[in-house]
Amino acid sequence: MSFQKKHILDIGSLSIDEITHILNTADTMKEISERPVKKVPTLRGKTIILFFHEPSTRTKVSFDIAAKRLSADSISISSSGSSMVKGETLIDTGRNLQAMNPDIVVMRHSSSGASNILSKALDTSVINAGDGMHAHPSQSLLDMMSIREIKGDLKGLKVAMIGDIAHSRVARSNMEGLKKMGAQVIISGPPTMIPIGIESYGVKVTYDVNEAVKDADVIIMLRIQKERQENFLFSTEREYSKTYGLSLEKLQQADSDVLIMHPGPMNRGVEITNEVADGPYSIILDQVKNGVALRMALFYLLAGGS
Amino acid sequence: MSFQKKHILDIGSLSIDEITHILNTADTMKEISERPVKKVPTLRGKTIILFFHEPSTRTKVSFDIAAKRLSADSISISSSGSSMVKGETLIDTGRNLQAMNPDIVVMRHSSSGASNILSKALDTSVINAGDGMHAHPSQSLLDMMSIREIKGDLKGLKVAMIGDIAHSRVARSNMEGLKKMGAQVIISGPPTMIPIGIESYGVKVTYDVNEAVKDADVIIMLRIQKERQENFLFSTEREYSKTYGLSLEKLQQADSDVLIMHPGPMNRGVEITNEVADGPYSIILDQVKNGVALRMALFYLLAGGS
Amino acid sequence: MSFQKKHILDIGSLSIDEITHILNTADTMKEISERPVKKVPTLRGKTIILFFHEPSTRTKVSFDIAAKRLSADSISISSSGSSMVKGETLIDTGRNLQAMNPDIVVMRHSSSGASNILSKALDTSVINAGDGMHAHPSQSLLDMMSIREIKGDLKGLKVAMIGDIAHSRVARSNMEGLKKMGAQVIISGPPTMIPIGIESYGVKVTYDVNEAVKDADVIIMLRIQKERQENFLFSTEREYSKTYGLSLEKLQQADSDVLIMHPGPMNRGVEITNEVADGPYSIILDQVKNGVALRMALFYLLAGGS
Repeated sequence: MSFQKKHILDIGSLSIDEITHILNTADTMKEISERPVKKVPTLRGKTIILFFHEPSTRTKVSFDIAAKRLSADSISISSSGSSMVKGETLIDTGRNLQAMNPDIVVMRHSSSGASNILSKALDTSVINAGDGMHAHPSQSLLDMMSIREIKGDLKGLKVAMIGDIAHSRVARSNMEGLKKMGAQVIISGPPTMIPIGIESYGVKVTYDVNEAVKDADVIIMLRIQKERQENFLFSTEREYSKTYGLSLEKLQQADSDVLIMHPGPMNRGVEITNEVADGPYSIILDQVKNGVALRMALFYLLAGGS
Repeated sequence: MSFQKKHILDIGSLSIDEITHILNTADTMKEISERPVKKVPTLRGKTIILFFHEPSTRTKVSFDIAAKRLSADSISISSSGSSMVKGETLIDTGRNLQAMNPDIVVMRHSSSGASNILSKALDTSVINAGDGMHAHPSQSLLDMMSIREIKGDLKGLKVAMIGDIAHSRVARSNMEGLKKMGAQVIISGPPTMIPIGIESYGVKVTYDVNEAVKDADVIIMLRIQKERQENFLFSTEREYSKTYGLSLEKLQQADSDVLIMHPGPMNRGVEITNEVADGPYSIILDQVKNGVALRMALFYLLAGGS
Repeated sequence: MSFQKKHILDIGSLSIDEITHILNTADTMKEISERPVKKVPTLRGKTIILFFHEPSTRTKVSFDIAAKRLSADSISISSSGSSMVKGETLIDTGRNLQAMNPDIVVMRHSSSGASNILSKALDTSVINAGDGMHAHPSQSLLDMMSIREIKGDLKGLKVAMIGDIAHSRVARSNMEGLKKMGAQVIISGPPTMIPIGIESYGVKVTYDVNEAVKDADVIIMLRIQKERQENFLFSTEREYSKTYGLSLEKLQQADSDVLIMHPGPMNRGVEITNEVADGPYSIILDQVKNGVALRMALFYLLAGGS
């Protein structure tokens, strides 16, 4: 089967077959990073631009390593050194980058929809590495890869996603992806952090974390951003942790083979306790490992193969 | 013919033959960026240091991609991470870089003459990627490459250059280069932005943009920096646009095969309207594309071949 | 002989044989940087992460060039773009990096002991590129390499180290290394900058720089940090220079084959005069050159060979 998509902008625009194709490809990429010589010549002579308008270590490093393991040339641009500061429009910057013949532009941006705009202006493939509160498809894909790797299939799984749903692009992409692949998704967190009408994604909502956790096959904890507290979206970290954080106690109600996930970086002691983060159910570091393989798959499918 | 120059510091120190040699070499480099595998092994094992003391996306990315397409290793140093902040002199920094055996140091600096100073202290080849208001030779060379590509020859062309001449290193390098290659250069812009005595470059000056544009074969619009307004060098952006900006209306007086150029980043609606920037006469994105080829040529001639 | 160490954290934990092995390996690496093609395929497919929490040009560039000359992929992370700013712990960041399967993590950090902590949490090899006031082993090793290269052996040499001993990780690593390799070390500088009890390293202390310099085979001048003056550790730069700075006059009392060293960046006119820094006894730029070879040797021994 050949992969026809030109851009990876969100999960919603990918079909079930396309998602499955990406995940299968990522599975085959994974062992490259386990070899003594962690490098294949597949994308030699391809140019990948990492265009990050928001600071991000882990996502950028993950894409960068993925590019290098496929022998592509990766070029990093961060906002501070960017001509965006000189008032140039996003589209002009994009066209300028395109004129240098890159094969893929990976973009992170603080504005929702930025990578959509870019993809329409460019002939080059665009990967959305996170745009505002909209989407973060590679994160969702690596989450699905990590679940599928252990559970075999996503269909029928009960996945609880807990925390700041409203401001999370990871939540949005995962709701779309997991639903599409046949999982059952239950959302929980403080009412101030769960948007009204979220049920339209086909997810169940409960403000009681214990109910969300009950019989869950997978629990995805989301990062709390401390600045939300200043905006009165939650009272104190201690209070948040007690009510919404994942502790060993709450975990006891989950399935005995439950998987604990977190997109990182974690606030230990706030949304997740040390015991849970580092415990036997946690596959948080597997997510990171799979992230490299998943991004290699995206690069391969967009720039390399068929 | 072999290329004898060790450094590329400004256009004034290049002969007509040397400029022609660089442009011819750049022409041959261009198709490398069009290949599926955009990479040749020519400069494998060469080290190129990109030493940027002023922020710059497009120029730095262009040099970086040029290095990688020739298989050179490029190392980026920006001012923020530099020991210059610890009070070390430019020459000490340069000597330290040289001790690590780079083949070429590409330098951008806010002080005019900085790369000249560096080149005298080092044995390594130095390319000036813009120094204060002095010179930006690779920009001028890519401009000449872009004109020549379409017009066939620079000799006898009427080139209008419009905007902030006084503060533009691009203007200075282009006046030197275009005159040297036999073009006729007409300068225009607000009187506050055109230095007295500029005619000594052998250029014509008019404060009437319509006169400059009349019968022009090429129009190079320069970027207006907004901070100039605070210094009373022009009144308002709207006023500037009306009087000195390039609009379709003004353009009608130019030659019917006129080329519109801009070194970027553009202030759309100030020095150039959208219709002109994106119109059929604009070769602004070709300039960017040619920039990579031109910089590949410089690297090749200084570090590689003959 | 095979190299058994997994990490390079400080000099104290290296045996005489291990130091000798590293220095011998570095000697063989040196000529690679002198070749027209300055690159060997030894570490192709290895991933080296340069994780710098403090700004540093020269050390980072040196590690970066070393990685590239061995064909390893190097990935730079600086603190500004790091998720450390989002409150993640050092260990979480380290584990995340490890999950991406790097072969070596090179870390600079402002806190003493940071790389020790990291090395205990990770399976990956860690190289300490400077941690607070604790250690900077690669600097000390390149210093020893530079001395040995000219003097043949470190044993029995009289090495004077002058300046801000208290705040210098270079001083600490060099005291350990030089003593271990059989040199005699004499410490000098302002009493406010020499910690009480420093003699426990087996070094001699004198507050009289002339006495330290007398008959010295090697003089290592340390950088004075201007902020120390604000803390009343010395009076004025002029005063410091006169009393503790190395001038031609003071140098006359040293051995006639004395070597002058400085880890850089230098404050010319403060801890060292121009005449001494640029004079015939100075091997300051050889230190930089040897730094690349030494770091190639560390990469090779930790990630490559035996």
